[in-house]
Amino acid sequence: MKYKKRTHTCGELREKNIGEVVTLNGWVDTRRDLGGVIFIDLRDRYGITQIVFEPHYHQKAHHDAKDLRSEWVISITGTVRKRPEGTENPALETGIIDVMVDEITILNKSVTPPFQIQDEIDVNEDLRLKYRYLDLRRRPMQKNLQLRHKMYQIVRNYFSENNFIEVETPFLMKSTPEGARDFLVPSRLHKGHFYALPQSPQTYKQLLMVSGLDRYFQIVKCFRDEDLRADRQYEFTQIDVEMSFVDEDDVFTMMEGLMKQLFLETLNVKIETPFPRLTYKEAMETYGSDKPDLRFELKMINLNNIVKDSGFKVFSDIIKKGGIVSGSNAVGCGNYTRNQLDVLTDFAKKLGAGGLIWIRVTDNGLDSPTMKFFSDDEKQNITKALNAKSGDLLLLISGEWKKALTVMGHLRLEMARRMNLVKQNSEPKLLWVIDFPLFEFDEEEKRLVAMHHPFTSPKDSDIGLMEIEPLKVHAKAYDLVLNGNEIAGGSIRIFSRELQVKMFKTLGISKEEAEEKFGFLMNAFKYGAPPHGGIAFGFDRMVMLFANENSIRDVIAFPKTSSGLSLMDGSPSLVDDEQLKELHIRVKGGG
Amino acid sequence: MKYKKRTHTCGELREKNIGEVVTLNGWVDTRRDLGGVIFIDLRDRYGITQIVFEPHYHQKAHHDAKDLRSEWVISITGTVRKRPEGTENPALETGIIDVMVDEITILNKSVTPPFQIQDEIDVNEDLRLKYRYLDLRRRPMQKNLQLRHKMYQIVRNYFSENNFIEVETPFLMKSTPEGARDFLVPSRLHKGHFYALPQSPQTYKQLLMVSGLDRYFQIVKCFRDEDLRADRQYEFTQIDVEMSFVDEDDVFTMMEGLMKQLFLETLNVKIETPFPRLTYKEAMETYGSDKPDLRFELKMINLNNIVKDSGFKVFSDIIKKGGIVSGSNAVGCGNYTRNQLDVLTDFAKKLGAGGLIWIRVTDNGLDSPTMKFFSDDEKQNITKALNAKSGDLLLLISGEWKKALTVMGHLRLEMARRMNLVKQNSEPKLLWVIDFPLFEFDEEEKRLVAMHHPFTSPKDSDIGLMEIEPLKVHAKAYDLVLNGNEIAGGSIRIFSRELQVKMFKTLGISKEEAEEKFGFLMNAFKYGAPPHGGIAFGFDRMVMLFANENSIRDVIAFPKTSSGLSLMDGSPSLVDDEQLKELHIRVKGGG
Repeated sequence: MKYKKRTHTCGELREKNIGEVVTLNGWVDTRRDLGGVIFIDLRDRYGITQIVFEPHYHQKAHHDAKDLRSEWVISITGTVRKRPEGTENPALETGIIDVMVDEITILNKSVTPPFQIQDEIDVNEDLRLKYRYLDLRRRPMQKNLQLRHKMYQIVRNYFSENNFIEVETPFLMKSTPEGARDFLVPSRLHKGHFYALPQSPQTYKQLLMVSGLDRYFQIVKCFRDEDLRADRQYEFTQIDVEMSFVDEDDVFTMMEGLMKQLFLETLNVKIETPFPRLTYKEAMETYGSDKPDLRFELKMINLNNIVKDSGFKVFSDIIKKGGIVSGSNAVGCGNYTRNQLDVLTDFAKKLGAGGLIWIRVTDNGLDSPTMKFFSDDEKQNITKALNAKSGDLLLLISGEWKKALTVMGHLRLEMARRMNLVKQNSEPKLLWVIDFPLFEFDEEEKRLVAMHHPFTSPKDSDIGLMEIEPLKVHAKAYDLVLNGNEIAGGSIRIFSRELQVKMFKTLGISKEEAEEKFGFLMNAFKYGAPPHGGIAFGFDRMVMLFANENSIRDVIAFPKTSSGLSLMDGSPSLVDDEQLKELHIRVKGGG
Repeated sequence: MKYKKRTHTCGELREKNIGEVVTLNGWVDTRRDLGGVIFIDLRDRYGITQIVFEPHYHQKAHHDAKDLRSEWVISITGTVRKRPEGTENPALETGIIDVMVDEITILNKSVTPPFQIQDEIDVNEDLRLKYRYLDLRRRPMQKNLQLRHKMYQIVRNYFSENNFIEVETPFLMKSTPEGARDFLVPSRLHKGHFYALPQSPQTYKQLLMVSGLDRYFQIVKCFRDEDLRADRQYEFTQIDVEMSFVDEDDVFTMMEGLMKQLFLETLNVKIETPFPRLTYKEAMETYGSDKPDLRFELKMINLNNIVKDSGFKVFSDIIKKGGIVSGSNAVGCGNYTRNQLDVLTDFAKKLGAGGLIWIRVTDNGLDSPTMKFFSDDEKQNITKALNAKSGDLLLLISGEWKKALTVMGHLRLEMARRMNLVKQNSEPKLLWVIDFPLFEFDEEEKRLVAMHHPFTSPKDSDIGLMEIEPLKVHAKAYDLVLNGNEIAGGSIRIFSRELQVKMFKTLGISKEEAEEKFGFLMNAFKYGAPPHGGIAFGFDRMVMLFANENSIRDVIAFPKTSSGLSLMDGSPSLVDDEQLKELHIRVKGGG
């Protein structure tokens, strides 16, 4: 098909172009027929330009334009004109001009789209995903993809400038089912053998440090066959980083520089470095979360010392059993109705709390059904500890340490929502959470598991505890948190073969199993592994937060649904028996 | 482990640092004990620094250094000194100084490596791959990975600056077995259903054009389950590009700019643009290849007009049957012995030629056993056409057009090798091969197949031939060739639904099959697809050529062997029955 190629994009023409003959290519965004004159907003990725078909100006072009409908693709040639006074559109960058058309070629027609190509649409997400190529025509989606594009480049340039080497690690690797489920890929040449898609390039990046590459990064797809949630996809993108001869501070400084650059270059926001650091214990006890949202205070206070001998047996018993009583002051919420308080109580119970103790602070003291169990001293100390004033509402949760704090943390977020504590355009709040436990006890499997992963180094001072009190061992592990979201996690790694063996032993991984799964890494450690550590960012979530979106699907070009379906191409799908035969597999009980 | 962190890398210290107290971290590269003084070359990614342990300078450090062996990892602190006169090492950037050590910490020991960490090693590649983390310590491999790193950044910056958007396309997609075999990934949630790993993001990038993204690029892994060769891996890296509202010229100009930048910034070589263009027919008839090496001449000449009525029946018969007689002049090779000529004849026969006609050009005319069949006119015309002079050797091959030319093309390369026509450091030669046939006839499957892929547009003027003489239809397809290697291929795409339907029909793809496999793309074309086209570069091969290596495995961090094995981690491997059970598959006749 012959057509004139554009001389300008649809976002480019300005006052200085007036009088020029130009060609534009693009999509018909809207079309208005005003008394014989046809106005069309012509759209491409770069903007919108109004083009005008006037019968007196050019009869044939005007005639040809009569059939045009939304989403048709056209090429037009015409002369740039200053818009008649009063018809300028200051909302458009091109709004001062329009183009008087004297030649038009229809490049492609369009049937009526299943939804309108406009910023706000009210349609089922499934429909958007099925017609993703149309959904991506919408400006908010294009803006998100452009932001994502920009973030890729900033990240890579930052690491390049800091002497990191980008290395691609394999996608077809060995299955090591530790943590999440692997996606498997059957081998054709080796019957009964399988590759796995990487859950992360963890072992490879450590091997790159053994090989002396010193500083590595990669923006890379990773895969986890886990059930999906709003902020999860089977395949997700990670900024993967590893450095040699470093400790935590070196990693923090380098990543703070990255975040600083990202905020500055994408949102023009200056953030302060260094970021605050909270130990895991502080984060849990003060915010009820290992990813606290610091955009608001609403801190939690450990009340154990105050109520450990309380006549309120629920509290004193729990503390005796090693539990915690945590309280928080919802300033100014003393006017909550009984009804509202019941809702909050239900909220806490649903999360697994035995109950919620609420206390209205009045001019006459603390008002609550439970107050009768407390001594005056206790009341006074609670008031003081929570800095309570008349008109406030105190919320107390008790229970097993982690469980009670987690409920309290959720309650904190819920109260912040109700109290509207997070303002639109509030400053982003970043922090490091550090000193995580090295191990946690998996209640389901009744065994110790690595809280981060089995390559994470214990704190030097805690190594002696590994065999005696493993749950008390702290790790050189850290998370980076942005506005209550974990956006990165990493650790200083074990680099001594002996310590790695000890780690596997503590985890109950047998010598044979360790050899089978991680033998090549263990072997590599024999040949002079340097001290090293790293971090990985969840890129999808990061872009989502920068884009101020609520779903990662809105920052991924072709996402899958929560059941792992691609509504556009219909995958996963049935395949030919011939294909399965070549792979030496068959579907159980079927095919 | 406590240790002093480096103040400098091992490639950093210069004369200006003399007198400074510094700390270096790195690997023991070599160790020499000269009369009680220990010299160690300390190595990291950035270079080598000589460090010195002298008993009189620091007894303890000297004592601690006695045990050091190659590949141990150490941290040393000491004072930078000007090397004693006569002991400078101009081969090292740090060669003017050394460091007198007064403190050493051993960070990790190393057992003796299976091979030496040096530039040239003479070991089996399998051993290198098994210990890849050690192989990657060698300077040539580090240089290759650094070159690769640099090329990534140049490519992305180039496209970013030219308004391309980087978009990640899915790795878990629909299986569309067209062309090569797919790698399949069983779905856990959807029994009996499979995802496929992308052979290329072809459909996605076209959908991105439908969505108006205008210019897209991505450096992306692709997967083909084909038997491997020296320059193939199951997973390979592609620079993937697509543009809207373009024709061939636009794509060429943009990619020429990229190549220009790559050559300039990595090799400091200025290349001329635009690149020459040869039609597929010209390339075949003149160089016997659709990826001709233009670093030397040694052109082939179509002799059909001269010998079509020859008394040499082999030639005249072949030409009558539509074949070709192609000749080439190996200038100055007239002194080849009968033995050498027999070897060349065998070479041609092995490639499928019926025979090789050789003619020595002597002062007394053409000397060849076959000459008796040719008329004097024919001899004269051959001499003239091949510009033959006394002392030259003429080589003639006849046969079916493509087959004969291909053999002749291989012979051309072989003669170039024997004649040493490609000089070390010869200028890189780039060209576009254009006007490929749209279809070719697959002898095995006895049907038409798309020479590029089924989305490639025919030349506008040839559309009418599609249903009548499909083999005569030319495509808007193009390859970019560097020194005889195809490094990129692409095409202007079909963007009309009607033409795409016609294409599938010509290929014998039924409506149902087209709907099943490409329905979502066909559907997208209903909604206003713009004219578009693109290209994809084989990145591994490109880096290999820039690095002047012979194997792509030398520019890939963790490659697989030719049977698809990772010798390092032992993948593919057996997996737990439990994993297969969850995926609803089992191994046929096993497990």
